[in-house]
Amino acid sequence: MIKKDFSNFIDKLQKDIVTSLEKIDGKEKFKCDHWTREKGGGGLTMVIENGNVFEKGGVNVSKVYGQLPESMSKMLKVNNSDFFACGISIVIHPKNPMVPTFHANLRYFELYEKGTLTDSWFGGGLDLTPYYLYESDIVHFHNSCKKVCDQFNPNFYRTYKNKCDEYFWNDHRNEARGVGGLFFDYCRENKNMSSNNWFSFIKQMGECIKNSYLPIVKKRKDTVYNNENVKWQNIRRGRYVEFNLLHDKGTLFGLKTKGRIESILISMPPKVRWVYDYTPKNGSQEEELINILKSPKNWV
Amino acid sequence: MIKKDFSNFIDKLQKDIVTSLEKIDGKEKFKCDHWTREKGGGGLTMVIENGNVFEKGGVNVSKVYGQLPESMSKMLKVNNSDFFACGISIVIHPKNPMVPTFHANLRYFELYEKGTLTDSWFGGGLDLTPYYLYESDIVHFHNSCKKVCDQFNPNFYRTYKNKCDEYFWNDHRNEARGVGGLFFDYCRENKNMSSNNWFSFIKQMGECIKNSYLPIVKKRKDTVYNNENVKWQNIRRGRYVEFNLLHDKGTLFGLKTKGRIESILISMPPKVRWVYDYTPKNGSQEEELINILKSPKNWV
Repeated sequence: MIKKDFSNFIDKLQKDIVTSLEKIDGKEKFKCDHWTREKGGGGLTMVIENGNVFEKGGVNVSKVYGQLPESMSKMLKVNNSDFFACGISIVIHPKNPMVPTFHANLRYFELYEKGTLTDSWFGGGLDLTPYYLYESDIVHFHNSCKKVCDQFNPNFYRTYKNKCDEYFWNDHRNEARGVGGLFFDYCRENKNMSSNNWFSFIKQMGECIKNSYLPIVKKRKDTVYNNENVKWQNIRRGRYVEFNLLHDKGTLFGLKTKGRIESILISMPPKVRWVYDYTPKNGSQEEELINILKSPKNWV
Repeated sequence: MIKKDFSNFIDKLQKDIVTSLEKIDGKEKFKCDHWTREKGGGGLTMVIENGNVFEKGGVNVSKVYGQLPESMSKMLKVNNSDFFACGISIVIHPKNPMVPTFHANLRYFELYEKGTLTDSWFGGGLDLTPYYLYESDIVHFHNSCKKVCDQFNPNFYRTYKNKCDEYFWNDHRNEARGVGGLFFDYCRENKNMSSNNWFSFIKQMGECIKNSYLPIVKKRKDTVYNNENVKWQNIRRGRYVEFNLLHDKGTLFGLKTKGRIESILISMPPKVRWVYDYTPKNGSQEEELINILKSPKNWV
């Protein structure tokens, strides 16, 4: 039964990731917040703040069910349906500006009519938002993604990489939020992939979350930085806020359907700056980042 | 000719306000950015940053015209119209957490069909966002607003005060952005108010911007504060960001119609924090503020 297996899988993944992050941080521990949803279900939000390595990070599991909210019925073009939605989402804001911000999400969705399962699919992805470009880190990140994709379908990496670039586009700034990764949704059973194949893909993605990001953190966490680097990090975090509040469908949907605010907005960076018309110096590392974000490239 | 007179009025008001703010700040001067709009018109954005008193402030004048954008045609239920829109907007983020953030806006709008004026109206308002409650300041602010309103209509203050509370409501947090002020829109000629009467009302609002806010700044700018007060200010500024990016129609319209990003987002506070599930201590001044924001009250 995928529903139960997926639910167990994300619980285990949450523990795994939290343990790994705490080990890297070496100072702070994650705090646990169990919460319930009035209309059915609940979740466990785990947060770390003011760590040695992680300035703020959230690893959130939610398992919610009940009557499908109207806005979702419209979007999915169904009537009188019930739903079950279950997922893990991770946002990590490291302290050191040389370590990228990381986001990942894995989710499973079921729809029912009169108690009978009528549709189900997986979705998710992972993406990287650096403040300074270490090309080898980004190549490693994308290679980790590609390695998993290639086990299932030679087109998956390119397709989901492109979807990621499309999705995390800060349209009003005409630039990407970060250097991308993977984004997939409505992954339903088809002639090439059974539901169990998709679940295997998702499980591999769970491994990928750790293999792609953690080595980068370990490698860069002790890099020397100065106040100007932090200023730049904080300004760029402003773009992260802009994306999440203006464009991110998950965030907007969560807020509209009166989800748990603190779990939704756990993605907000800890410290952010907005400086009027800030433009990096010609030829600077900061300008180099902007150039990459303006026209997303292929890393592998 | 109201169009020309209003345009001159906001230019003069911009200069006036900038001069007054610079005088109070005593250190930094406003920087001028002239900009043009591809499809017609332009503006002058004036910004102060890192002052003695003002951490960040913008006083922006824009005068734009041309074909009415589709999204606005829909909203105003007109076809094939041209428009002229002209306004001044002000957002001030003081350094000292004991000085409230201030926002004001005055605007004039004209619609044309085949070169003939078919509709015109004024809009605007002003509102206060304190971090700590000084009741006498808020009463002074609302009294200044009421004094102008009462000269024109005994119902204006209550009506526009309530509209302000409604508009600046951070729905996802179930709290007001601040302690309100006035909000008015679609102020058209009617049997009680000619266009010239409305223009007089707007001109008085220009005076009110100065009379309502500047005395508060002068009174509180040298109040002693500590790091905890700044932390609270920065957290509350996060709510300001959330309102502007999630709910503010002006901001969202500006971004959707590809307005000048830096002039639109000049409203963003300079330094902001998001702390997971931050809850003020029982009986603290911070908690007192929250209680007021949860249920807006009548100040005069």
